[in-house]
Amino acid sequence: MGQLSINGNRLWDRLDELAQIGAIPETIGSSRLALTKEDGRARDLVVSWMKDLEMDVTVDGIGNVVGVWHGPKTDTALRPVMTGSHIDTVRSGGRFDGNLGVLAGLEVVQTITEMGVSSRHPIAVGFFTGEEGARFAPDMLGSLVYVGALDLETALNTVGVDGEVLGDELERIGYAGRAMCPGVIPEAFIELHIEQGPVLETEGITIGAVESVQGISWTEITIEGQSNHAGTTPMSMRRDAGYVAGEISTHVRQIANQIGGTQVGTVGKIDLHPNLVNVVASKASMTVDLRNTSEMILRESESYLATFCEEISEKENVTISSKSLARFEPVEFDNKLIETISSTADNLGFSNRRMTSGAGHDAQILARVCPSAMIFVPSKGGLSHNPEEYTSLEEVSAGANVLLHAILNVAGECS
Amino acid sequence: MGQLSINGNRLWDRLDELAQIGAIPETIGSSRLALTKEDGRARDLVVSWMKDLEMDVTVDGIGNVVGVWHGPKTDTALRPVMTGSHIDTVRSGGRFDGNLGVLAGLEVVQTITEMGVSSRHPIAVGFFTGEEGARFAPDMLGSLVYVGALDLETALNTVGVDGEVLGDELERIGYAGRAMCPGVIPEAFIELHIEQGPVLETEGITIGAVESVQGISWTEITIEGQSNHAGTTPMSMRRDAGYVAGEISTHVRQIANQIGGTQVGTVGKIDLHPNLVNVVASKASMTVDLRNTSEMILRESESYLATFCEEISEKENVTISSKSLARFEPVEFDNKLIETISSTADNLGFSNRRMTSGAGHDAQILARVCPSAMIFVPSKGGLSHNPEEYTSLEEVSAGANVLLHAILNVAGECS
Repeated sequence: MGQLSINGNRLWDRLDELAQIGAIPETIGSSRLALTKEDGRARDLVVSWMKDLEMDVTVDGIGNVVGVWHGPKTDTALRPVMTGSHIDTVRSGGRFDGNLGVLAGLEVVQTITEMGVSSRHPIAVGFFTGEEGARFAPDMLGSLVYVGALDLETALNTVGVDGEVLGDELERIGYAGRAMCPGVIPEAFIELHIEQGPVLETEGITIGAVESVQGISWTEITIEGQSNHAGTTPMSMRRDAGYVAGEISTHVRQIANQIGGTQVGTVGKIDLHPNLVNVVASKASMTVDLRNTSEMILRESESYLATFCEEISEKENVTISSKSLARFEPVEFDNKLIETISSTADNLGFSNRRMTSGAGHDAQILARVCPSAMIFVPSKGGLSHNPEEYTSLEEVSAGANVLLHAILNVAGECS
Repeated sequence: MGQLSINGNRLWDRLDELAQIGAIPETIGSSRLALTKEDGRARDLVVSWMKDLEMDVTVDGIGNVVGVWHGPKTDTALRPVMTGSHIDTVRSGGRFDGNLGVLAGLEVVQTITEMGVSSRHPIAVGFFTGEEGARFAPDMLGSLVYVGALDLETALNTVGVDGEVLGDELERIGYAGRAMCPGVIPEAFIELHIEQGPVLETEGITIGAVESVQGISWTEITIEGQSNHAGTTPMSMRRDAGYVAGEISTHVRQIANQIGGTQVGTVGKIDLHPNLVNVVASKASMTVDLRNTSEMILRESESYLATFCEEISEKENVTISSKSLARFEPVEFDNKLIETISSTADNLGFSNRRMTSGAGHDAQILARVCPSAMIFVPSKGGLSHNPEEYTSLEEVSAGANVLLHAILNVAGECS
């Protein structure tokens, strides 16, 4: 191990070429919502690269694309070791999120091919449909169908934020494929991704060996009080939905601080009604985003929130209702794979640490059917879902080299 | 005193007839923004009633309408005792706010005429242009011009929320009059108005003798932090503008509770950006409405708010800027007039209390040039600026009777 090395510039150039499709003017970012014309053109480009590498390309019923590579000494009866990610973006996205994982997979295959190396297991590189969920909910839709956790028919009938039906859009761009869903279960799944957070950059560490994905709990809270004149209504007679929203918002911070560890809590959305300077708000709706790597502690945080809402609704004489918008249990990745990633990074001389992913990824869905794990590289300023998203050539190359050697380790290198 | 009594049903019918202009379907409310076609028709109706009562009607340069009544024994060289209010409404308004004060003034004149009573001073009933400020800012615009606190030219050039120029709209409805502004300084000004708050109803009291109007301080606060992923950004690395908005909102309540007395504080408007469930808000803008009857204490509350903003901006590493949107000093009404209103209510057998107005009224502007005061009657549920605004026939009649006898007291009853 250590001799083989990917071609960082070639990977960098492919990232750049892919980013030109749906490029956001005057930025290095891209806008390629799932199954739009731009997504279609991006798929065509990546498929053409797969074919250049003589991979067998299949497209399944939800548009997931998988390219499989066989070396001269590969046993094609074995399950493939799979890598990949997604190439759709949020409306105002960056060029690394998802794309890096897919193109690094191709770079791994090209390096192996050019160096005359082979592997016992086939190597598969996939990109899954609609990971971002920005046009069609839920996020990670393609991988959910791939593992059989979401019914194909249901997924095809999904209506997007623009009113279009997923199945129609898939047909329109020519990616309603024939491969079966659920798809082939891989031997293992390893995804390279940018961190999308500030931890690696802040600590000056190059590689994250991701051992878990935080559980996510999204709650929409609606507070109903009474609209009143801000001047003529004594404080004691108010039923102020806006004030209660403020109390809940600050309490969410308290919950996160009190629990500590990986617990985070965010109120990112607040809407008051009528939202006027001199009217006590009659209604407020807000969202609470709670995350933890432990399902038990995540439930505890949800329960703290619910208790607080009960107490303040009584105290302030308002009605509070809440609705779960999304709920994912935490995911633990495969210990052996995490260890492989750490030791690979050590061997290549890259500083590394175990860490948690705060965001959702296809790998957490694949983890339901096979040993899975992720490799993180730093995000400048922690920025993501933003055209300014940036990871340096050196960091991208480091991540792709760890991916290369981790895959060869699992797939069985044979020279 | 006590024999003379207004005709409650006649007043009630006029309130109803006026409310038909701009009536909001399926409610008892009206929509008559200042200087719209509906306002023009309402003005025509009220002017026709003034003429029926043989009042001398003048219209000034900003469209304020004043009808002056002389009895057989009136000394026309004396300054008139004035009453009145406004007949414009907010977009979705009630039938009592403003209208009651104007039509009760006409009812007072009609009662005096029919009963063969006279007064030493002339009696004037006025309605001022654009009191609500809902189409053309500032509110109380007409009375500000009447007392010379706002320049006529400036007022005529005001651009409304719909982009129309006030002077053009005034011409269009035929109310660009020739009477001079500033107008004649009255001997005294007494305004009957609904409370627009819950105090009288809650305490079961019929008449409020308004002794002061709260000072008003409106501040717009803008918080700039940093947009971040709600999952991947540790709590300690956040610069969360949404959280800081919540802290300020709850602190405003604390300021009000700590100061106590007439102090109120409201955060009625909060806007987060980008306002998404899974993104830490980069920016928040919000308004703070602070009111107190004491200028000194109002300044204290403003200073508490400013100090808190400084502290939290440092603690949370966000930038906070603030801008004054409106600032009115508190107004104290005339002691002798307040006493006259209280004793009149006592003599008529109506329960009454001294109180503060939390809302702005034309009387507080007239107070700059002559002794002024107000009479409040209850608002059902404290509701106002709402089609459901309601005050009963009995309460309306009580208020108009107090107005009648208070005016006669000041104007000098001569039978």
